[in-house]
Amino acid sequence: MALKLYGLPMSTCTTRVLACLHEKGVDFELVPVDLFSGEHKQPPFLSKNPFGQIPVLEDGDLTLFESRAITAYVAEKFKETGTDLIKHNNPKEAALVKVWMEVESQNFNSAISPIVFEYIVGPIMGKAADQAVIDANLEKLGKVLDVYESKLSITKYLAGDFYSLADLHHFPYTHYFMTTPWASLVNDRPHVKAWWEDISSRPAFKKIVGAMTFGEGK
Amino acid sequence: MALKLYGLPMSTCTTRVLACLHEKGVDFELVPVDLFSGEHKQPPFLSKNPFGQIPVLEDGDLTLFESRAITAYVAEKFKETGTDLIKHNNPKEAALVKVWMEVESQNFNSAISPIVFEYIVGPIMGKAADQAVIDANLEKLGKVLDVYESKLSITKYLAGDFYSLADLHHFPYTHYFMTTPWASLVNDRPHVKAWWEDISSRPAFKKIVGAMTFGEGK
Repeated sequence: MALKLYGLPMSTCTTRVLACLHEKGVDFELVPVDLFSGEHKQPPFLSKNPFGQIPVLEDGDLTLFESRAITAYVAEKFKETGTDLIKHNNPKEAALVKVWMEVESQNFNSAISPIVFEYIVGPIMGKAADQAVIDANLEKLGKVLDVYESKLSITKYLAGDFYSLADLHHFPYTHYFMTTPWASLVNDRPHVKAWWEDISSRPAFKKIVGAMTFGEGK
Repeated sequence: MALKLYGLPMSTCTTRVLACLHEKGVDFELVPVDLFSGEHKQPPFLSKNPFGQIPVLEDGDLTLFESRAITAYVAEKFKETGTDLIKHNNPKEAALVKVWMEVESQNFNSAISPIVFEYIVGPIMGKAADQAVIDANLEKLGKVLDVYESKLSITKYLAGDFYSLADLHHFPYTHYFMTTPWASLVNDRPHVKAWWEDISSRPAFKKIVGAMTFGEGK
């Protein structure tokens, strides 16, 4: 039975999982969730994820949520298929993948997601962007990217000279961030820029990026 | 060679790792880092963690940071020793451990850590607590704990009827949170309260909790 992914093609957390599924070359079915009617906050969906968030992955009788837990599951279950995203045969490299996955989760995501939300998502929902929130998080993001610039001057990817989940997890928010007026935070750091150009040109991303839009103009 | 953990016994992220090391019964050396003199922002330490944060784990020539990546590494490397914190023989249970580890990281921690910071850490650093920040995060935390209450009425621990890293990761912030005036958020939810009493009475926690203080009165 094919994996069933509940989500939306423009959702950052859904695309994090989609990118992983495409890297692994795994069959799956994408089941749309109607966020605009509040389907994710209704009982049928809440029984899959009590936090009422997309995406959710169903694999037979196993139901998983939280995008980074889903990608880790997919990368582990299909470790012999497609790109090895977790370096499962090398405990030291596998540990470094986990370190930089946590960096994305704790340092990068907490800075970039409020910028994307304020500038892109909020206005769609009728909420004016709060420039003070954007500015504070641009400063935080710049400091994180300074560390990335230094790291990526030593290794080609974040966890080492190999592409991994640690890189992949950055894709959705960075993609949207690059459409904002502050893309120079990436472009002005040559190693970060080269890394972004490399990972965003992967076939797995090309398959999903066309549907990553919240509407015209953004 | 014993593992070397750079950190401080009152630090939330250090204690997350300490609890894991004690659960596994692994030998280690705790190397104090002088945060007050800014040791963590100086080059020798920055070469271990470029983000200048504790803890850092050294295992021979492998250097790891980010507490949740370190616990995952320790739990995997010593999977046959002490408590099995990742259910390494059961892929479905292992996946559920990852789901609830992510819930802690994305939903729980982001609500509880600002409360602990504003009420306990900030004042020590001469910064008055911002009640608006506390109130907003108490509301978020309450919603997260509502989901926990429901889940813990079905299974004894978060990922299932077994103790795991998903539970362990909650320990440091919840410990400090229970010293604030808002401990009722836990105590008023009977299943969350029973879960907290269970996990906070584990021998691994008893070994470290005595040193978890930021000074008198807190």
